[in-house]
Amino acid sequence: MPRLDASARGVFIIAATPFTEDGRLDLAATDRLIEFYLEQGVDGMTILGMMGEAPKLTEEEARTFALHVLGRVDARVPVVVGVSAPGFASMRALGSVVMDAGAAGLMVQPPAVSARGDDAVLGYCRMVAETLGEATPWVLQDFPLVASVPMSALLIQRIVAACPNAVMLKHEDWPGLDKLSAVRDAEAEGARRISILTGNGGIFLPFELARGADGAMTGFAYPEMLVEVCRLFARGESEAMLDLFDRYLPLVRYEQQPGLGLAVRKYVLWRRGALACPATRDPAPKLTEASRAELDWLMRRLERSLEHQRKESVA
Amino acid sequence: MPRLDASARGVFIIAATPFTEDGRLDLAATDRLIEFYLEQGVDGMTILGMMGEAPKLTEEEARTFALHVLGRVDARVPVVVGVSAPGFASMRALGSVVMDAGAAGLMVQPPAVSARGDDAVLGYCRMVAETLGEATPWVLQDFPLVASVPMSALLIQRIVAACPNAVMLKHEDWPGLDKLSAVRDAEAEGARRISILTGNGGIFLPFELARGADGAMTGFAYPEMLVEVCRLFARGESEAMLDLFDRYLPLVRYEQQPGLGLAVRKYVLWRRGALACPATRDPAPKLTEASRAELDWLMRRLERSLEHQRKESVA
Amino acid sequence: MPRLDASARGVFIIAATPFTEDGRLDLAATDRLIEFYLEQGVDGMTILGMMGEAPKLTEEEARTFALHVLGRVDARVPVVVGVSAPGFASMRALGSVVMDAGAAGLMVQPPAVSARGDDAVLGYCRMVAETLGEATPWVLQDFPLVASVPMSALLIQRIVAACPNAVMLKHEDWPGLDKLSAVRDAEAEGARRISILTGNGGIFLPFELARGADGAMTGFAYPEMLVEVCRLFARGESEAMLDLFDRYLPLVRYEQQPGLGLAVRKYVLWRRGALACPATRDPAPKLTEASRAELDWLMRRLERSLEHQRKESVA
Amino acid sequence: MPRLDASARGVFIIAATPFTEDGRLDLAATDRLIEFYLEQGVDGMTILGMMGEAPKLTEEEARTFALHVLGRVDARVPVVVGVSAPGFASMRALGSVVMDAGAAGLMVQPPAVSARGDDAVLGYCRMVAETLGEATPWVLQDFPLVASVPMSALLIQRIVAACPNAVMLKHEDWPGLDKLSAVRDAEAEGARRISILTGNGGIFLPFELARGADGAMTGFAYPEMLVEVCRLFARGESEAMLDLFDRYLPLVRYEQQPGLGLAVRKYVLWRRGALACPATRDPAPKLTEASRAELDWLMRRLERSLEHQRKESVA
Repeated sequence: MPRLDASARGVFIIAATPFTEDGRLDLAATDRLIEFYLEQGVDGMTILGMMGEAPKLTEEEARTFALHVLGRVDARVPVVVGVSAPGFASMRALGSVVMDAGAAGLMVQPPAVSARGDDAVLGYCRMVAETLGEATPWVLQDFPLVASVPMSALLIQRIVAACPNAVMLKHEDWPGLDKLSAVRDAEAEGARRISILTGNGGIFLPFELARGADGAMTGFAYPEMLVEVCRLFARGESEAMLDLFDRYLPLVRYEQQPGLGLAVRKYVLWRRGALACPATRDPAPKLTEASRAELDWLMRRLERSLEHQRKESVA
Repeated sequence: MPRLDASARGVFIIAATPFTEDGRLDLAATDRLIEFYLEQGVDGMTILGMMGEAPKLTEEEARTFALHVLGRVDARVPVVVGVSAPGFASMRALGSVVMDAGAAGLMVQPPAVSARGDDAVLGYCRMVAETLGEATPWVLQDFPLVASVPMSALLIQRIVAACPNAVMLKHEDWPGLDKLSAVRDAEAEGARRISILTGNGGIFLPFELARGADGAMTGFAYPEMLVEVCRLFARGESEAMLDLFDRYLPLVRYEQQPGLGLAVRKYVLWRRGALACPATRDPAPKLTEASRAELDWLMRRLERSLEHQRKESVA
Repeated sequence: MPRLDASARGVFIIAATPFTEDGRLDLAATDRLIEFYLEQGVDGMTILGMMGEAPKLTEEEARTFALHVLGRVDARVPVVVGVSAPGFASMRALGSVVMDAGAAGLMVQPPAVSARGDDAVLGYCRMVAETLGEATPWVLQDFPLVASVPMSALLIQRIVAACPNAVMLKHEDWPGLDKLSAVRDAEAEGARRISILTGNGGIFLPFELARGADGAMTGFAYPEMLVEVCRLFARGESEAMLDLFDRYLPLVRYEQQPGLGLAVRKYVLWRRGALACPATRDPAPKLTEASRAELDWLMRRLERSLEHQRKESVA
Repeated sequence: MPRLDASARGVFIIAATPFTEDGRLDLAATDRLIEFYLEQGVDGMTILGMMGEAPKLTEEEARTFALHVLGRVDARVPVVVGVSAPGFASMRALGSVVMDAGAAGLMVQPPAVSARGDDAVLGYCRMVAETLGEATPWVLQDFPLVASVPMSALLIQRIVAACPNAVMLKHEDWPGLDKLSAVRDAEAEGARRISILTGNGGIFLPFELARGADGAMTGFAYPEMLVEVCRLFARGESEAMLDLFDRYLPLVRYEQQPGLGLAVRKYVLWRRGALACPATRDPAPKLTEASRAELDWLMRRLERSLEHQRKESVA
């Protein structure tokens, strides 16, 4: 499998980690989920991200899951593996196993406890770059809402300059549009170009593309929307892009609830037949009856809206 | 003017604080803005909230502004005044001046520095209740994204039980729907009922109403949408409510950017003719050219969508 | 080995995790360190705490280290094993292995990400209690400076009431003396009594004992001081207790530097011959030349002071 | 009065703000306190710092207090006035009044809400520099434990380079010794030299002086110790410096309790006759009976130790 590089673009779906009702890893359900994602046309896959409930797996489970996914995907698309960990020993161990098994690259979010202030974040990233090894491309995750590590455009530039194997930014700052522009502006003035895929459920995706993002790396439960938005943007059809995006926005917004969002995603994926079971592992907030009813309502409204659109485009 | 009580409902708009281009309070522009809000049908007004840039005013400016607004509104709707302050001396001073001048009530967000853990938050609220005086109704603001003070439904109940003059909750936790339900459930089991108005730009307003909220207290730049959503909900027209809401959601989402959101609101209010100048006071993030272009685009698309709707409803 | 219960008292030393210069676990050095601690008269040992660099071990290393320690200690004193982890799967896996191997109990610090607000912390602790099993005693760690999870005395009472297998509080809030008193006051009024051992390097130990603590659970590099302070307190020799404590306070204070403190401890343990190598695993702040010189100075001054005391007591 | 510049050194005591038992500003008590500080030999005074309970004063009270202090001190030592505020309007207003009245300089701590990440902190400081005016020297406060704004040595250099009127660093990071060295190292390589006074109650003062600090800016209730430590250091009497310092360390440590420390300081100042009343303004943690007894004990032990020292030095 070719390794990730700065030319990566499109939709790298953040894959859910399927569990059985009683909380065990469900590898059979994983196969079905992978095929679902591929059928929606994703360009890549990212596993063991926060949405993948990575921190709740034992290291053995993480390894088992990653190797299973790599085997099933079988190089049809590149697979990025999240290896964020409190210590480098775990990061190195998981990273080397999955790279040997064909992963395209790794992903790391610097943790607040080890990275307080720009210099400390930079120092941490240097150690990540060295720990993973110069031949291993990695994605710098920038998710301050959860990680509490602010990174300015200037800091990102410094990291990119110091770490030749950092080839992609998973951009999910909020607000983040002007920062994205600032990273691209710096590249226009000579900084090394990296791929930028954006997160946050895609809630700003159309604007992020216009600001210079190369696509999305997020786990919204309707990956086909993310894919189509990227295609429409590439074709220059901005109004059609927003027309499509806005139909899904009520669900994107509902999914974009810190902590609860993962249960929302899994529920929708389950309702869509992509997951055998919507269970999340404890500790995790659960969907109440009321939330499920709201989601059912939003899904019905989306279907109606898409139906309406189909009829209009036929007529 | 009647004082705020637990029966309050509808839309209390969080009013912007108008400045001139060079950063001075603009009282003439304030008059125009007040009339704009009233024309959109708001049921009340809240000034000197975070959106009102209250912390950036000197105490004299805050007093001047509040008294001016109270005079201009002239009891047409109730006015709530934000008095959050690091110390009780300032809170008491501003509070007593504005209550004497006809404010309907005051609003306070407990600060993280004085309120770490449930007991401390409760203790702080007791002191607020005593500082403001038993005859002064106040609104408990629950905005953890900015204030970093988590409040559970149980804590809110304890505060309500301990502070008879706390008559309203400004609910802007995120995620917050199940918490809102939990507060109402507790009331069903005997807790004193309070009014609940919700914030966060209204981004979950339709569901919050369904969960038991009495309306909105937020500053979205199209107050008429908030008003109409509340009306449609009251009439039981849920689908029509969402149809309307979803047209505005792209803008609601864009405005809902921490820090930057205020500049967005003021820009849209200015573009709508409600503000003479979109300036915010430093320190504050500013809108870039790119952001303004994105907002112009979203506003054009909203107008087109509303036009389309008008034609459809005529046809 | 008898299991931990609420009668536990004295000094449970938080044991360092020895590494070789190149970062591998050093089990031979571990044996020497264990004997050092036992020679100083500690009443128990806690491993894989934050000071033990637990998060930087792979799960396999953690298991190997814990089993090795349990074997070497061989029931001479009770051993508590830290099992804090982002997910319950890892917590359960490590916990059951070490309990089977003779650990006296486990220790858990609720994480901020899963426990925001009192109700959430309580809910988390209930899940911990169930995950570990009712037959497994555990220590609730309360270390808000690092974990950012504030716990009031009332919350601790609620946790104790809800979790019969929570038998000890590792108290390291700061300031924490009045909270410690409040926990004991609640017990005087009927709450179930738990053991309380205190942390923070022992910097408030004499007062904590006077407020009702049963001893210390911390890793200060001179465990004999902690042991002797507890003995003098038990004998009612308060002035002698402070006379002794204050001789060590300059070093206690120097060690009490967030992040850096672990490197300080390991350096002093190494200088004392208790550790074969002072290395800490990355990511971790390192001691500069200047810091080492300051520590050497403080150690010389301590030796001189102890020498002076010995002469005085002989005379 | 000469303005503050980078040559400032010695002890700038952070002055308490005296209140009456019922919470009013006590200007008569202020006079007594000022004389107390001057009698202890302080080289300067800083008012309206966090220890001065500045955020709990109304703006009018702050102005009244500052002008009163400036009048009473009457240029016997330079007075620095804390003007940290959420908005620049208040900062500018207070700053210009006190500079006109003879203040030597102002002090500002960048707030987390406006300054997330190095670039934002730098941007904030530029605005501060401009708001205060180029003729007004100011002190950059770096107190991350309370303000949650991390500043690296590199960031401090950037601020110093960008703000010619920033003449002093109030250094109270923790751990902070190596950072202090790094700031001085940068100066050795060409950065503009600033004065560095250190805070945190003086708990690391002897080492900070050795690392290049010019003195202390803190409010420990025995200012004479801070003064004498600086003198002994200047004379090269390192062992005597630590001998003296270590006698006070038990009290320094007790005072160094976040939130509670101010009540401790005021109590000790009151017991020493320097304050007419130990009251702090709500919201603030209060000293319990047990804490007061502990402080009385520590003060008795200090007196005994000093008495012992006097006898020894006579003998």
